[in-house]
Amino acid sequence: MRLVASYIACSADGYIATPEGDISFLDRAVLEGEDYGYTAFMATVDTVFVGRKTYDKVASLGFSDPHPECTQVVFSRQPQPDPWLNNGRRIWTATHPVAWVRAELLHPGKDLYCDGGAEILHQILQAGLADRWIITTVPVLLGNGIPLLDHPNRLSDFTLKNTTHYPNGVVQRTYAKKFEVEPTGADGGGDV
Amino acid sequence: MRLVASYIACSADGYIATPEGDISFLDRAVLEGEDYGYTAFMATVDTVFVGRKTYDKVASLGFSDPHPECTQVVFSRQPQPDPWLNNGRRIWTATHPVAWVRAELLHPGKDLYCDGGAEILHQILQAGLADRWIITTVPVLLGNGIPLLDHPNRLSDFTLKNTTHYPNGVVQRTYAKKFEVEPTGADGGGDV
Repeated sequence: MRLVASYIACSADGYIATPEGDISFLDRAVLEGEDYGYTAFMATVDTVFVGRKTYDKVASLGFSDPHPECTQVVFSRQPQPDPWLNNGRRIWTATHPVAWVRAELLHPGKDLYCDGGAEILHQILQAGLADRWIITTVPVLLGNGIPLLDHPNRLSDFTLKNTTHYPNGVVQRTYAKKFEVEPTGADGGGDV
Repeated sequence: MRLVASYIACSADGYIATPEGDISFLDRAVLEGEDYGYTAFMATVDTVFVGRKTYDKVASLGFSDPHPECTQVVFSRQPQPDPWLNNGRRIWTATHPVAWVRAELLHPGKDLYCDGGAEILHQILQAGLADRWIITTVPVLLGNGIPLLDHPNRLSDFTLKNTTHYPNGVVQRTYAKKFEVEPTGADGGGDV
């Protein structure tokens, strides 16, 4: 079954960047020959979707096409050229992440990678479409900053699939959506 | 050596409570016979200090003396009876957490437990006095809420001492302050 997955790095106190958007604390996680499962993760997806502000931020760092091996979709409320060309490469644009994801999941393919930001993640989570989260925590306390999620949301339970503890103190947790089993009541069971 | 330690529970996205201060998501971590190392942690401390707002919040939940086996200190900018009596028990009050901690560390004793809130944690962290953090993460995404820390701070590096993965998906990380070793240059070593 095709899933929606996210791969996110944050500080030990849960921030993805300083209040100014600085992510240089991630440099502390650099470890020779270690990519924290990123290559393996990217092999599971064929499509990356991202919000326009996050796309622009990443592009401003020099990565206007960070995932050339994937279909890239950018969500924006403002009209965009559809598709626009980035050095000859098609970048698809769309306006409604939830409707787009629901439609996309009906097609065969590898998983979809939701690469943020918080607003897109919120919409996907709120719609119950966030299936897998890989959260990589760097052993640094930032004190404040931009949180992983920052919108009122329904509380979402997850199952921890895996924890990996790296020699430099990085901890990676992989969560999967917890499917609630509806009581059928067929056997007369219920509250005791 | 006497240390300052914190023991904190949060959601997978790093919040200690909902925006309204609701911590009922912690109920999802209840596991028969499992206290997540809390008893062992409490055996390492003999003094608990906390901000007035956090103290009042905990008291409002019915716990006006949550650590009867410890000296309890409440920090407040407003003058308080010093000490005040809580059902005959002395609760000490003070105004300057950093100065108080520095003085306290000169006395023999077990470790000091900084039980929050974010403002006290910020001051202790900023002063370089936060030695040990035990962060217990419940496999729930809240979406937003009250963060573990929310003040501009100097970036603080920590060493991961331990990770424990519980059967219900709770992950506990223990961090210790990273002491930077100043290069002496005595052997002519340095950048290559």
